[in-house]
Amino acid sequence: MSPATRVTPLAAVLLTGDELLDGRVRDTNGAYLSRSLIERGFRVRAVVVAPDDRATIAGHLKRLLADAPRVLVVSGGLGTTHDDVTMAAVAQAAGLELREHPEAWQAVLEQVCAVAARRGIDVEPLLEQARKQALLPVGATPLAPAGVAPGAVLTVDGTTIVVLPGVPRELEAMWPPVLERLAAVAQAEPPRVRLLRLYGVGEMQVVPVLEAARHDLLDVAVTASVGEITLRLAAPSGAAATRQMVRLVEALSAALPVYSSDGRTVDELVADTLRAAGATVAVAESCTGGLLGGRLTTLPGSSDYFLGGVVAYADSVKTGLLRVPQEQLDAHGAVSPQVAGSMAHGVRSLTGATYGLSTTGIAGPAGGTTDKPVGLVYIGCAGPQGERVAEHRIGGDRQTVRRWTVTAALHLLRRCLEA
Amino acid sequence: MSPATRVTPLAAVLLTGDELLDGRVRDTNGAYLSRSLIERGFRVRAVVVAPDDRATIAGHLKRLLADAPRVLVVSGGLGTTHDDVTMAAVAQAAGLELREHPEAWQAVLEQVCAVAARRGIDVEPLLEQARKQALLPVGATPLAPAGVAPGAVLTVDGTTIVVLPGVPRELEAMWPPVLERLAAVAQAEPPRVRLLRLYGVGEMQVVPVLEAARHDLLDVAVTASVGEITLRLAAPSGAAATRQMVRLVEALSAALPVYSSDGRTVDELVADTLRAAGATVAVAESCTGGLLGGRLTTLPGSSDYFLGGVVAYADSVKTGLLRVPQEQLDAHGAVSPQVAGSMAHGVRSLTGATYGLSTTGIAGPAGGTTDKPVGLVYIGCAGPQGERVAEHRIGGDRQTVRRWTVTAALHLLRRCLEA
Repeated sequence: MSPATRVTPLAAVLLTGDELLDGRVRDTNGAYLSRSLIERGFRVRAVVVAPDDRATIAGHLKRLLADAPRVLVVSGGLGTTHDDVTMAAVAQAAGLELREHPEAWQAVLEQVCAVAARRGIDVEPLLEQARKQALLPVGATPLAPAGVAPGAVLTVDGTTIVVLPGVPRELEAMWPPVLERLAAVAQAEPPRVRLLRLYGVGEMQVVPVLEAARHDLLDVAVTASVGEITLRLAAPSGAAATRQMVRLVEALSAALPVYSSDGRTVDELVADTLRAAGATVAVAESCTGGLLGGRLTTLPGSSDYFLGGVVAYADSVKTGLLRVPQEQLDAHGAVSPQVAGSMAHGVRSLTGATYGLSTTGIAGPAGGTTDKPVGLVYIGCAGPQGERVAEHRIGGDRQTVRRWTVTAALHLLRRCLEA
Repeated sequence: MSPATRVTPLAAVLLTGDELLDGRVRDTNGAYLSRSLIERGFRVRAVVVAPDDRATIAGHLKRLLADAPRVLVVSGGLGTTHDDVTMAAVAQAAGLELREHPEAWQAVLEQVCAVAARRGIDVEPLLEQARKQALLPVGATPLAPAGVAPGAVLTVDGTTIVVLPGVPRELEAMWPPVLERLAAVAQAEPPRVRLLRLYGVGEMQVVPVLEAARHDLLDVAVTASVGEITLRLAAPSGAAATRQMVRLVEALSAALPVYSSDGRTVDELVADTLRAAGATVAVAESCTGGLLGGRLTTLPGSSDYFLGGVVAYADSVKTGLLRVPQEQLDAHGAVSPQVAGSMAHGVRSLTGATYGLSTTGIAGPAGGTTDKPVGLVYIGCAGPQGERVAEHRIGGDRQTVRRWTVTAALHLLRRCLEA
């Protein structure tokens, strides 16, 4: 543990919901809450996911409270059905009664009437169910709902418990102002953080460089995902830590392919570069089936530089729309550097984009041969300076190959834009 | 809690990694492990995410062990860097020493030599780091690695602790055989589960139907996500529970728009129907930017029915490639039922697909007007029976609008296929 972490206030997060455990819903709240707490200077001891069972939830709450965190965020289980038991579990863990809160009831009433009006349904049967959502532990303050369910804030033995709904949109609307108040009261000091992003090396090649540079005052974390490595360097205040941070960044940048050291992702770099150059891009996708276009349009305002393109999953679309020569397909196969190049050129001239970016590969699980195994991917980029084609051999299942290909395509575009 | 759950063996999951807490990596292992345990008949009491700190991890392990679960799965932190401390924390919590295991070292050695050969780098400096990965708590049995890091299995006071690497691909290769052995020993009986999938209603409309039918012997869970509701009904063995299950399914199916009661997702239904009919589909995407094609190619073998299509993000691509009349764009705007229809027809004739499926909408955050607010989306489907266009007004942020649109497009295609 670095010196910085010893003085940081503790926090913990408890998420409730059978659907988070049995795989029906992929949770986003845990990462959202813990990241936001860390960024505001808290140390998160745990994110716990628990089933919709009052006794189990109350048990987890008591254990988390035993650490005396400054903040305990609880999310989910504030709805109207029988398995929504979170507020009752909080009351049980805190040794408090549950009672209807007039302000909470007023908020619920307004929201339910609005929902009924919008859907054109009778409000009466809804009210009966909704009344449950106005029950809070005695002494708790309601949080105005972003959907129907109000949240609650209460303090138990020095820990502020914040109860929020599980719907990510509602949670993300209600949480930030609460966090700001809590961070101000806790006088939490966010660490200074540098993110270095690397592409084209494995974690094993990063470790020796890291260990050769002194960094005992820093928190250093290494993450590998779909072909990228992210190094997160966190420094407490103080000149010595600052010097270590500067030197470590220098050492890493000198020895390794660091493509971003200002926090920007490859998506943001590509977007900024295209926009600054007044350039546009279009895609020609085979194995990624549209995911590359989907990724390029994730950022708001992407219409400034993204025109669109062609999903050429079938060969008939490759020849018909992208004008890939049939002879090329016959001679080299659809998964070949030649076809990747032709697809990139084809979509560039078809759309008039500055850059054409293509993907063709074998995502699997079937379709691989000895010569062309599952995971073999070609990515093409055609632009004003000519054409580049990159070959990749990607390990992993179908989704991994496709996601890795999308990331690799962004990096090829980044390099073409740097040229 | 239903009677079935009282006899089910307990399980718990602990995931380690700062990157899971600070938002650099979105965890998939927690949901994967808990779902697999639930499907094999265990009851999961908790999924805990903890930072890379030995004392914190050991503390969580001790608390989870205090519940005496049959199985405790621990994942992550088996790498070679300083913040990989999981095996040491397990040893600490179990009160055991850490010692190099000859079999584990042999496995690490082989993997490291293979990695070095593939990358063409010197093996010696890697070996020094990798030695750490052969250290196991005394008495533990190593699990053969799927990457470099071996896992471990040990039993502490009746709890089997399974330690796995955090890389999802490695974890998912190493876990299933261990789970099968554990489930056999625990004589866990998987509950009989029915999944009902609904589209086009909100949770509030489901609750009254649910409450009108007796289901005290069943575990019933309701999940809402991007426009769909999933009801998971789990029954213990016995004739009374079976009768309740059958009647509840009947009541729900009679009152609500259940589109799937055999477990199949809308993706699988559409795929099966297209394949059975020998039909094909092509996409014309504006606001989804390729995500619809990406989703339609998620299932292996999708080339049987998916041809590809056009990402028409810029209006120039809508007119140039999809032959959307410029007058139509001028008169109604790109986000209009007319243009959605033209896009669907355009891609159908361009590719020769049986069905053309289009999306056009305002994903936001900018671009909304009073007449056409953010979240307004039109989806078109052109097929042998003619054309359908659906209007949606979707709440939420940019990613929500886009994901919801993709799901809604699959449902429109499903309905066209049923016609």
